[in-house]
Amino acid sequence: MMMAYFVESFWGERNNGFDVLYHNMKHGHLSTKELADFIRERATIEEAYSRSMTKLAKSASNYTQLGTFAPVWDVFKTSTEKLASCHLDLVRRLQELIKEVHKYGDEQIKAYKKTKEEVSGTLEAVQNIQSITQALQKSKENYNAKCLEQERLKKEGATPREIDKATVKSKKATDTYKLYVEKYATVKSDFEQKMTETAQKFQDIEETHLLHMKEIIESFSNTIKDIHLQIGEVHEEFINNMTNTTVESLIQKFAESKGTGKERPELESSRKYELMFLQDFFFSEIVRIIHTVCEEAIESISCPQLLLVSHHWLLHIFLVPLILLDTGNNSVLLNLRNVIHPVQLKG
Amino acid sequence: MMMAYFVESFWGERNNGFDVLYHNMKHGHLSTKELADFIRERATIEEAYSRSMTKLAKSASNYTQLGTFAPVWDVFKTSTEKLASCHLDLVRRLQELIKEVHKYGDEQIKAYKKTKEEVSGTLEAVQNIQSITQALQKSKENYNAKCLEQERLKKEGATPREIDKATVKSKKATDTYKLYVEKYATVKSDFEQKMTETAQKFQDIEETHLLHMKEIIESFSNTIKDIHLQIGEVHEEFINNMTNTTVESLIQKFAESKGTGKERPELESSRKYELMFLQDFFFSEIVRIIHTVCEEAIESISCPQLLLVSHHWLLHIFLVPLILLDTGNNSVLLNLRNVIHPVQLKG
Repeated sequence: MMMAYFVESFWGERNNGFDVLYHNMKHGHLSTKELADFIRERATIEEAYSRSMTKLAKSASNYTQLGTFAPVWDVFKTSTEKLASCHLDLVRRLQELIKEVHKYGDEQIKAYKKTKEEVSGTLEAVQNIQSITQALQKSKENYNAKCLEQERLKKEGATPREIDKATVKSKKATDTYKLYVEKYATVKSDFEQKMTETAQKFQDIEETHLLHMKEIIESFSNTIKDIHLQIGEVHEEFINNMTNTTVESLIQKFAESKGTGKERPELESSRKYELMFLQDFFFSEIVRIIHTVCEEAIESISCPQLLLVSHHWLLHIFLVPLILLDTGNNSVLLNLRNVIHPVQLKG
Repeated sequence: MMMAYFVESFWGERNNGFDVLYHNMKHGHLSTKELADFIRERATIEEAYSRSMTKLAKSASNYTQLGTFAPVWDVFKTSTEKLASCHLDLVRRLQELIKEVHKYGDEQIKAYKKTKEEVSGTLEAVQNIQSITQALQKSKENYNAKCLEQERLKKEGATPREIDKATVKSKKATDTYKLYVEKYATVKSDFEQKMTETAQKFQDIEETHLLHMKEIIESFSNTIKDIHLQIGEVHEEFINNMTNTTVESLIQKFAESKGTGKERPELESSRKYELMFLQDFFFSEIVRIIHTVCEEAIESISCPQLLLVSHHWLLHIFLVPLILLDTGNNSVLLNLRNVIHPVQLKG
């Protein structure tokens, strides 16, 4: 149970403790509005930050895709996108919270209107004691003045008529003064009772309000804490991804993607050219010999069809091994077609 | 010891592995520049965020200082200022890092210039093998064409002069072809040796470069991690400060700072007015009696100075107890002066 701070501290000569407490209740709603403003401003900042991070992630993906370092940009891009997403998540949660704050603010206004009606009796008691106090002060001053006036007239030897008149006035002032002293006692009692109740009511309202505000702030700081943890995880992930992106893996990846070939121009390549040369050379010589032999035979024999078949067989016997030796160089086959063609036509 | 990825993967028919590796080295510098750009962009984002937080802290301190909630804004303000300061610290550290990256970029350019000179022999060997390969191919085609031409002339029954001319051409093509086959063997050996060395050199450069880049990134992520921890501490502090800012303490603080007074208009206050009234009433009566007695005496006695003294004494005997009873109401003293004065003058 909290001490009755308000019941204790809002008395005083001028009796305007009620006014202070009543306005404080209204400031409670102002605080709620300001808290919503604060959270909204924070959400706006986070949104801008998130947008900038998304832009930064795009920059990372626009950086050169050439060179060994290129895959690292993917790590940066992913991490930066996740950071952007964390802050956007914060924005969403803060916006939800703002809605709650507004809802509370609306409830607060309704509650305040109800309270205003409930404390209207106290306001009246306050106004009563304030006006009675003033009237009492005035009647006291009037009484003192009248007494002095009466004395003065006597001392200055005024006429008995004047003195009597002053005595009547003095008597009247005495009565008024006495009346207000009595009235004050009654009003004071009413005021004291009502003010005690109302001060406690205002303190209860304040307690409830502050508890609600603290709950909102707790929700705010929990949200921020959650997102902070998420951001921490994004950082950890980035560090792990960077650890896994070893220098060796980058060099290997580059060699695999941009490599120009694994076969060196080994001695075989040089041998290949030599072999090619020999094939080409022997091929030409053999074809020349066969042609010469066949042409001479055609000139002396009556069945050229038979000879053409023999010519074919001779070509095959000599050329097939050469074709088989051919290592990807198709010049033999090409030449073969060119050689056979004219012989056939001639046949 | 890392595998010789580059020595293995940058051969291939067209022999342009050197070109790919040389350009990759240049892309290394581009990566450095881009990393500096990335960090700079991040620093810019953090700076904007920090500025916005400072603005938000100012908002918090501009919120109403009235009402029980007011002291909470100080907690928000302090925390938000600290957040701003954390992000500004991050900006400073990132700017330091950018300087380091630029320094490294400058060193890189110098190192690349040196490397360019060192690999100039390899570039020459590459150009040699590329041109020899081309010439070899051409000479081979020429050789084949010449052989076919020779055969064609023979089959078409050309003149012996024409055939001899073709034979000479064919012989010349055969020699050129053979020459390039031999030349290729020599150039290939030189190219292979130099390319092996240079590919390893390029891989070493790449290893060193990537290690340096990873160090920069480590420094970047350590900085971010440090600041993230600092921000976490600011959040913890905020949560603790909010826990310490109890509802009771806020209500108490408000009662103390805005309280209107602890003294109720208790029964004493009402008694005070009654007493005041009695004081005023008796005072007037007593003063009146003393005056009347003294004036009558003055009229019948020859020494008014003596009577004036007596008059003084009488006033003191009656009034001092009343003055002592006076509770802050100075009307008795005031009236006393007014009463004594005219008597003295008269005396």
